Order: sequence, then structure tokens, then C-alpha cells
Amino acid sequence: MDLLSRQNPVFSAYALYSVLLSLKMLALFLRIAYLRVKKKIFISPEDTSLAPGAVVNRDDPDIERTRRAHLNDLENIPMFWIIGFLYVLTRPSALIAENLFRLYFVARAIHTFVYAFVVFPQPTRAISFLVGIAVKFYMSLQVLAYFS
Amino acid sequence: MDLLSRQNPVFSAYALYSVLLSLKMLALFLRIAYLRVKKKIFISPEDTSLAPGAVVNRDDPDIERTRRAHLNDLENIPMFWIIGFLYVLTRPSALIAENLFRLYFVARAIHTFVYAFVVFPQPTRAISFLVGIAVKFYMSLQVLAYFS
Amino acid sequence: MDLLSRQNPVFSAYALYSVLLSLKMLALFLRIAYLRVKKKIFISPEDTSLAPGAVVNRDDPDIERTRRAHLNDLENIPMFWIIGFLYVLTRPSALIAENLFRLYFVARAIHTFVYAFVVFPQPTRAISFLVGIAVKFYMSLQVLAYFS
Repeated sequence: MDLLSRQNPVFSAYALYSVLLSLKMLALFLRIAYLRVKKKIFISPEDTSLAPGAVVNRDDPDIERTRRAHLNDLENIPMFWIIGFLYVLTRPSALIAENLFRLYFVARAIHTFVYAFVVFPQPTRAISFLVGIAVKFYMSLQVLAYFS
Repeated sequence: MDLLSRQNPVFSAYALYSVLLSLKMLALFLRIAYLRVKKKIFISPEDTSLAPGAVVNRDDPDIERTRRAHLNDLENIPMFWIIGFLYVLTRPSALIAENLFRLYFVARAIHTFVYAFVVFPQPTRAISFLVGIAVKFYMSLQVLAYFS
Repeated sequence: MDLLSRQNPVFSAYALYSVLLSLKMLALFLRIAYLRVKKKIFISPEDTSLAPGAVVNRDDPDIERTRRAHLNDLENIPMFWIIGFLYVLTRPSALIAENLFRLYFVARAIHTFVYAFVVFPQPTRAISFLVGIAVKFYMSLQVLAYFS
């Protein structure tokens, strides 16, 4: 069986959650764009022509919070893409792998929601962040054990 | 036929444009380094030993604009790498896939040019950004349809 | 032989160093979290509930230096993951490929160490940065030559 085909349920789950994570990142992009247009607050001087009365401001609390959520995605999700891919190639149990990918996606979705949409008290965000780290750390150890 | 070989024109096009996007990102890196040395403006205190008379300044408009262009690459291009790879595995038509990859590369090259090299009036940059998002969104839907 | 299996020493080396680079990035994450808790300096207002007496401050020199080291990883290491992967598919000599991957990892580990842990005088960091760029540039040319 080809490991990178849809006949492999582990790879199919990897593809599904990798794309869902991308779409989640795109949603944050669109939210930042929406907030910029709504508040008429842009990041570069030439952007102010996009809306009458717009200004340049890099300190708006809502926009900067959304940008931090987005930056945290950038720090985490590409690492999931590569480690998850290598983990698929270690031929893990489908049951474990599918639930790990699902857990990772849910943790990152919660992280985004409580950071950029509705501000929850800590430690909700800290826990969702650490769950994501733990999943990647576990998969990293599996890849190291298999390939070395 | 092995999907990940150069006998597959879709994968060859994916490899070509993925590397060209990397080289485009490297060009921005080198431009930031060139601007820092030319203007003698660095980001960390110990860097000032690299040029006599250098200072630390994180607010130079040209350098910060180039850094924002680079950050926008980081927010977009790794997502293309993973989604494009998964899209190759859905066995798309070579004609459509090659033109999508080419369109994405051209959109990102325009985005970089009008952001970091010659400042164009908006909405040039906004359109090139949205074209890139649209390509990734289309490929995401194809991947979801194929693998789920 | 399947190029993406552990029977291929080039791919095994790629998997090993890709994961080690991920773990290196995770170490920087944990160092940032450690510094934030130790110094009681956080990035978002709701985080101050994580430690009594905590404040929001985005200008602490140690934390910002560590964040710049981390951002530099984000700018470099995902590009290694994709270019290294495509380079494996060009069937390079195992001797050259394994040493390139090792060199890249060592250069990035030095970059992190002298940026975020013990501040060395320049040009140590500049050289380790440029070695990483040179490795990616060489692999990019190999991929372009093979796939086009």
C-alpha cells in the first residue's frame, strides 16, 4: 500500500487536519483584514487609500491581539505539518494517529478562539498551547525512534 | 507512475515553483541585510560592531516595510508548500495545476515587488495578496474533497 | 527502493535533522515561557493572572532577544524542511546529503546559542546565519537542475 494515498487512513487524516489548520489560519487572516477595514487602521502608509479617513496605527489592542494569535500559529503549525508528515511515514497505529491529529487541531482551534475572538481568562490559552506542544513532542520522539 | 518523481509534470511544476518561492524569500532576506549595512541600522546591540558608526533602530521606514513584506511571505508561503504538496497527491489535471502554481508564484512576486522594492499605490498589493489566498483556498477544497 | 523509507539513508538523515531542528525550536519556546514566568513579564493583559505581580511589557531586552532568535528560526527552518525534502527526491549522494543536513543543523544550533543563550560578539551569528543560507541555496540549485 502506498503510504501517501487515500487508501492509508493515517495519511488521509493527516491531509484532512493539515488543510483544516490552514483554513483556520486563513480565517485569522480574514479577521485581521476585516478589523483593519472596519476600524480604518492600517499598517503601511499607502494602505490608507483603501478607506476614507484611514490611519496608520500599530498599537490597536484588538488588531495586535489578533496578530499575536496569528504569529503563534506561524510558530506552531508549520512544525506540525513536517513532524506529522514524518510521523505518518513511521506507520503508526491508525487509531492513535487519527486521535493525535484531531487533538492537535482542537487544541489549536481553542487557542485561536480564546486569543483572537472571545478573550477567556488564563490558563485556557496556556493549556491549549501546551497540549499542542505535547502532541508535537510525542510525534517527534516516534520519528526519532523510527528513523535513527 | 510515482507521483513524487520528475516523470510527473505536476510534481515537477510544484518543485520548481516551491524552490522559486524560496529563492524569492531569500532575496528579501538579502535586501534586508543590504539595507541594514547600507544604512548602518541593526536590530541587536552586538550587531553594531559590524559597521563603524552603526546604531540600533527598529523604526526605520524602509527596513520595517521590507520586514513586513518578509513576514507576509512567512504567513503565506509555508501554507502553499503543504497545501500544494497535498494537492499534487490528489492527481489533478496537469494543465490546471501548473497554471495554478504559476499564478501563485506571479502573485507573490508582485506582492513582494510592490511592497519591498517599488511602492505602488494600493490596491495592487491587496489584489496580489487575495489572488494568493484564492489559489490556496481552491487547492484546500480539492484536497478536502479527495481525502475525506 | 522507496525514497521515503528508512532504507534510504538520505531520507533517514533528513527526518532526523528535521526533527532535531523542531526540537531546537521547541527549546526556544520553552526558554521564552521560562523567562516570562521568571521575570513576570507577559505579552497580553489576561496573562498577568498567571503569576502574582506580573505586568505586560513588550520591551524586555532578554525576552525580545529570545523572540528575535525564534523569529529567525521561523524565517529559516520551514524553508529547510521543504527544500531538503525536494532535495532528497533528487537522489543525491548520501555522503554529501548527510553532511549538508548536519552542517545546517550545527549552523542553526550555533545561531540559537549565540543569540538567545550566551551573547557572543559578532560576526559569529552572522556567519552561522550565512552558512544556513548557503546550504539552502546549494540544495535549491540542485532541485532546480533536477526537476526542470
